[in-house]
Amino acid sequence: MRILESNSRRLMLKGTAAAMSAVGMAGWAKLGFAADAKPLPGYANWKIPGDIIVHSSNTLETKRSAYGSSVITPSDQLYVRNNLPPPDPAILENRDNWAIAISGVGKPVTYTLADLKSMGLETTAMVLQCSGNGRGFFPSKPSGTPWKVGAAGCVIWSGVPVRDVVKAVGGIKAGAKYMTGTGGEVLPQGLDPLSVIVERSLPLAAVEDALLAWEMNGEPISLAHGGPLRLIVPGYTGVNNIKYIKQLSFTEQETKANIMSHGYRITPVGGTAGPDLPSVLEMSVKSWINSPLPEDGVVRAGRVQIHGVAFGGVHAVKGVEVSVDGGKSWSAARFVGPDLGKYAWRQFVFDANLKAGEYQLASRATDTSGAVQPEARFENAGGFNNTSWMDHSVKVSVA
Amino acid sequence: MRILESNSRRLMLKGTAAAMSAVGMAGWAKLGFAADAKPLPGYANWKIPGDIIVHSSNTLETKRSAYGSSVITPSDQLYVRNNLPPPDPAILENRDNWAIAISGVGKPVTYTLADLKSMGLETTAMVLQCSGNGRGFFPSKPSGTPWKVGAAGCVIWSGVPVRDVVKAVGGIKAGAKYMTGTGGEVLPQGLDPLSVIVERSLPLAAVEDALLAWEMNGEPISLAHGGPLRLIVPGYTGVNNIKYIKQLSFTEQETKANIMSHGYRITPVGGTAGPDLPSVLEMSVKSWINSPLPEDGVVRAGRVQIHGVAFGGVHAVKGVEVSVDGGKSWSAARFVGPDLGKYAWRQFVFDANLKAGEYQLASRATDTSGAVQPEARFENAGGFNNTSWMDHSVKVSVA
Repeated sequence: MRILESNSRRLMLKGTAAAMSAVGMAGWAKLGFAADAKPLPGYANWKIPGDIIVHSSNTLETKRSAYGSSVITPSDQLYVRNNLPPPDPAILENRDNWAIAISGVGKPVTYTLADLKSMGLETTAMVLQCSGNGRGFFPSKPSGTPWKVGAAGCVIWSGVPVRDVVKAVGGIKAGAKYMTGTGGEVLPQGLDPLSVIVERSLPLAAVEDALLAWEMNGEPISLAHGGPLRLIVPGYTGVNNIKYIKQLSFTEQETKANIMSHGYRITPVGGTAGPDLPSVLEMSVKSWINSPLPEDGVVRAGRVQIHGVAFGGVHAVKGVEVSVDGGKSWSAARFVGPDLGKYAWRQFVFDANLKAGEYQLASRATDTSGAVQPEARFENAGGFNNTSWMDHSVKVSVA
Repeated sequence: MRILESNSRRLMLKGTAAAMSAVGMAGWAKLGFAADAKPLPGYANWKIPGDIIVHSSNTLETKRSAYGSSVITPSDQLYVRNNLPPPDPAILENRDNWAIAISGVGKPVTYTLADLKSMGLETTAMVLQCSGNGRGFFPSKPSGTPWKVGAAGCVIWSGVPVRDVVKAVGGIKAGAKYMTGTGGEVLPQGLDPLSVIVERSLPLAAVEDALLAWEMNGEPISLAHGGPLRLIVPGYTGVNNIKYIKQLSFTEQETKANIMSHGYRITPVGGTAGPDLPSVLEMSVKSWINSPLPEDGVVRAGRVQIHGVAFGGVHAVKGVEVSVDGGKSWSAARFVGPDLGKYAWRQFVFDANLKAGEYQLASRATDTSGAVQPEARFENAGGFNNTSWMDHSVKVSVA
């Protein structure tokens, strides 16, 4: 298999969008990408093809076997989930001109990205995880992408704290209960805008650690990940981190956009989604093992370093245990590497001595609030928030 | 300018070296890389061309303007300095088979990378910096690459601690004073091997935090950065972190290799290098500003977030001050983002209010041992270890 990749991310970083579209998808066909794999979409064709499962042009998953042990997920392995196709890459041609309207504050204003860059700088490492990560383990097969573990990564964002922006514009208006962010995607013609727009309302508590971010993992944010400007809300699931953010409003009501009122609701199986049901917002404690995996083949008997990731969602992760017998017995694992703060994941390792045989490997994390990762998933129609340690366990053969 | 990039890193990661050499450098010419820039060498053509200064095929520098504010330097921006051309990419075809001989221990042994992976796992973030970084500021123009700030990055490595390996083989032999690592490069024919081999002897203190690493920034180490296996010695300059390591010996004497006996010695200007002079080993406290820079153009008057990086070498960095008047007065800057441990750099920011005019921006770091970054460089014939805050200052116009 020959694999080549046009350098569209670099082009987008530098803003030569015209050149990029001249290359587009043609490169893939020309360069002989394996016919049995769906090609990466043009806006993300700088990802490592062998590390990504392409579900559709708007849903790309990191292979479980691709996760390393070095804390940060490299951009070229990170999952993508778009609720609408990304905007024209031309929006990256002059990043500093990108504008965002701030309303529901003392003094409403429109800032450019250049303005924001002058106002403050903060950097936060956090787990970015799709609300539906783990849906693929639901036997009920909910509609939506059947992600296993790979709609998640731990990445670093830089930008200005939303609280600094709010302070500069006279504070949040009295009576506001929500921070409502609106994405800059182009809406399909002929549809009710509310039925498609990416707009989410979050509790005001989310303001505290939120960023308006222009950098991810040390580079200007790519189009695939919401550049030039993205709302980052650490501890909240992916959909709440609005890409191409063009409006930030402090509102008394939740937006009526379908993605808020009916999408991303915790709905009983067989029930109907609606605004009275709980919304998918904060993440909960979770972990999984990334090595060894069945796809790595037979594991060599003897010492085995079982490793994976653990995070607490809105809380820090405090500890993680590993089981090699499908959850009958547990032993404390050790955290490895730097602690990047409460919203980041930690890598853990358990030094096991395994004789020949079959093993079911599982991990179970605890957060600083005392919450323990549960054995069973919480059943819901949308397949959201799966944290079941049993679902995430793996069976390996040792010889 | 059209910029395209063949995907040779991915190929190397996956081990299809034959396919890679079929592409090789031809891609660059065919795809119209700008004639005014030296092309990236084939083994590193996955780097972002616009972010890299190509000094030669074995010396690639990160542009100062390319550094972001998010702590970790992305692999595709990281500098490269090879003392010999990298080995054939075929060595990455089966990473787990890579062998390293361990000697000068109770029970000498040859381990494969698969063996090492079973023995332990640790992750360390650290500044990787070429011994000659900052040489370009020496008015004496020492021979060697005239690096400014860009032969440095902060990266994350995963591997097995050398101390765990040593323990497994019966400990270091009595009388040994050095840890001597040998690189796996192919030596040029017809030369005395000692005149060219990459082999360095480090004090045994370096064992404590050293790794035999197979992963950098979450991915298997690329050929450009020493994969499949590299000796990582946090706090020591780049050359001491032996790429393609094939032998680790605990020795009573320093190696007689020229790169140890004469190369990388702190030699008085006009003097002759030799084994009695101090070797270039540990790094010292240092910082520099990455934004704003003269190359960014005129800075907008008003609030300006001055940011950069600071590190302590073998110590943690404790604080950093910023001056906007060329060092006449100093103010404390604030650290930004997660602390990745004592060997990592920290990003700092200083929130300045600048009226129209000319400014000389400088930063000055202090480490936990109390050492302060000096104003003047320490003159030496090789242009090593430049930590002068004055050399690293920048002049910007504000309007």
